[in-house]
Amino acid sequence: MSRGRTFLQFASSEVDADILYGSGFFAYDPFLFVEHRGRSVLVVADFECDRARAESSADQVWPAGVLAAEDAKSRRAKTPALDPAGLCAAALRRLKIRRVGVPEQFPLGIAQKLERAGFSLRVLKEPAYPQRLIKTSAEIRLVVKVQRQVERALRAAEAMLRRSRQVKGRLVLAGKTLTAGDLRRVINLTLMERGIVAAQTVVAPGDQAVDPHNLGSGPIRPGQPVVIDIFPRSSESHYFADMTRTLVKGRPSAALQKQYRAVLKAQKLGLSMIKPGVAVRTVHRAIMDCFARLGYETGEIDGRFQGFTHSTGHGVGLEIHEPPKIGMVSPAVRFCKGMLVTVEPGLYYLGTGGVRIEDLVVVTDKGIRNLTRYPKRLTI
Amino acid sequence: MSRGRTFLQFASSEVDADILYGSGFFAYDPFLFVEHRGRSVLVVADFECDRARAESSADQVWPAGVLAAEDAKSRRAKTPALDPAGLCAAALRRLKIRRVGVPEQFPLGIAQKLERAGFSLRVLKEPAYPQRLIKTSAEIRLVVKVQRQVERALRAAEAMLRRSRQVKGRLVLAGKTLTAGDLRRVINLTLMERGIVAAQTVVAPGDQAVDPHNLGSGPIRPGQPVVIDIFPRSSESHYFADMTRTLVKGRPSAALQKQYRAVLKAQKLGLSMIKPGVAVRTVHRAIMDCFARLGYETGEIDGRFQGFTHSTGHGVGLEIHEPPKIGMVSPAVRFCKGMLVTVEPGLYYLGTGGVRIEDLVVVTDKGIRNLTRYPKRLTI
Repeated sequence: MSRGRTFLQFASSEVDADILYGSGFFAYDPFLFVEHRGRSVLVVADFECDRARAESSADQVWPAGVLAAEDAKSRRAKTPALDPAGLCAAALRRLKIRRVGVPEQFPLGIAQKLERAGFSLRVLKEPAYPQRLIKTSAEIRLVVKVQRQVERALRAAEAMLRRSRQVKGRLVLAGKTLTAGDLRRVINLTLMERGIVAAQTVVAPGDQAVDPHNLGSGPIRPGQPVVIDIFPRSSESHYFADMTRTLVKGRPSAALQKQYRAVLKAQKLGLSMIKPGVAVRTVHRAIMDCFARLGYETGEIDGRFQGFTHSTGHGVGLEIHEPPKIGMVSPAVRFCKGMLVTVEPGLYYLGTGGVRIEDLVVVTDKGIRNLTRYPKRLTI
Repeated sequence: MSRGRTFLQFASSEVDADILYGSGFFAYDPFLFVEHRGRSVLVVADFECDRARAESSADQVWPAGVLAAEDAKSRRAKTPALDPAGLCAAALRRLKIRRVGVPEQFPLGIAQKLERAGFSLRVLKEPAYPQRLIKTSAEIRLVVKVQRQVERALRAAEAMLRRSRQVKGRLVLAGKTLTAGDLRRVINLTLMERGIVAAQTVVAPGDQAVDPHNLGSGPIRPGQPVVIDIFPRSSESHYFADMTRTLVKGRPSAALQKQYRAVLKAQKLGLSMIKPGVAVRTVHRAIMDCFARLGYETGEIDGRFQGFTHSTGHGVGLEIHEPPKIGMVSPAVRFCKGMLVTVEPGLYYLGTGGVRIEDLVVVTDKGIRNLTRYPKRLTI
């Protein structure tokens, strides 16, 4: 709820974090949520009403079927309009609303139908819930709870790597070649034991990590860096956590060790710069400059994007990538106390492979508090 | 790709099945996809380009940063526009498109900016990819692969229930009270072993199932029905499967047995009626009538929605709930060969609890092929 605004959303709260934040109701199927005169109304399928009354933070819950039937009666229409636009119109009529704010991502198809039905929609310029950027201590606790399980999962994967033996250019564990899939499985299972859902854990050995979102597959070789990026969501709180480490079993090349030290140095620099009032792009640019100074180029090399190819970090909360993006964005985007962000510089080159180190930190009065409790060491 | 249309989408393919279907590219972050003159173009972050070229089905992949920079240069603008609307405009200008079709769910905020920049947007009346309703044999194989794992997971849960012993109104396994959480955990872990992601498995004992999307929690009692609804997604193919069974350990009451037989009978009736050309609402109404004939009322009873409170089923594919919805929809919605749908009648009453039985079937020339291989029996 935000001030006295009149605000309409229609989305699934599984995929739209704003409607989840506003309504406190988690559902796969899209539903309708209105804020008006300081009160909020949720409209859900009839059979979802009792659950919505128990679980949501809305002041009122209206069953869609009943709402549509009553609206049809009052309009002397033959059939209730149960489609999204029909339900939105019925709710707005009942609330005697003609003009309403909607979020940027409001569906154009519904908007056009509502406008044809005489309603006036205005797209909010600001985020639907600016307060989502600033985490409460309760939200930070929920993220930390997930983060501790992320660390537990990485320990399980690291233990597998450690137990494996080097045999003729392969890693062997329990008589089998150790693969990226094996590490991903143990990570995802360790998380799922606690109801934490990792759908797309990255375990990318060697050159595979040059595409930072390549999930990775196949055997892990001795001396090869493995980028392990774990970013799951709690199935209870729906909050995410996020951490990356790069590990090598066996002897890393001198070039890889140097690349690792460069990333570690850049991350330290980034972490040391963050505090309230600092423009996020200043931190991103400092990391780019740091890499350039150390001789690490970024750009298209041999037809592939290589170097420090992504942004420095992003907000984490009910979305895995949420504002602020720590990249070359507007200088007006500044760190504020209570922001929860990742700091994850990386360097990726064909030949040596990828290195990324990512921590999750909360911005405090004077700097940051690092929520991540996992050592940073390349070789194990 | 569909005919020679000009069509623009901007979404994350993790949450928008249309852009996933059209582009063949899975990504967390929103991206841009255009179809024009029988060819398709994907615009993604620079660092995602190589992966998009390898994994997507698009004819061309353009790096967003490069596109925005070139567009700024050609417009003699000082700074490249990297926001969603700026990128869409840049891509449309490069393709020399002024008028473009967009899907119903296209974000209103981007649409308004594009219209202010002189582009003309038309919302598609039909679904973005009508062919998504009719599954190819390759798609059916992908769903069946997930479905077999769903069955394996339910067998694991059923085995736990079977191994438990009745002790003073509780079920005890390995010295501990058996809970809904225990069954959910074994189901989700069994699926995760094969890379199948179940985020919200329902294991709802007794009256908890009266809210059909209540996940369920707490001890499972002897004689109490447990609704187990498993609907996970493959982390590789991104296709879903869906199955529900209702199980009782111990002796069910006569009322519960009768309720179970009614649901089984209604499901058989539904399954027997589905064939190409039949209106989906005919099947839903037949099931409602069947329950009414058997004396099972639906509606608000003692302030709670009870009875057969949801629709008969839904399509399954790249979304867990996709068209056709098998409910009181337009009589024009008819079954077609190749549709993949659930048939899942249920009855829910406070006191006896919930019963739902759900199979996944594909519509054939003359009827259906049931893809579900799991026995239907209440007591175990």
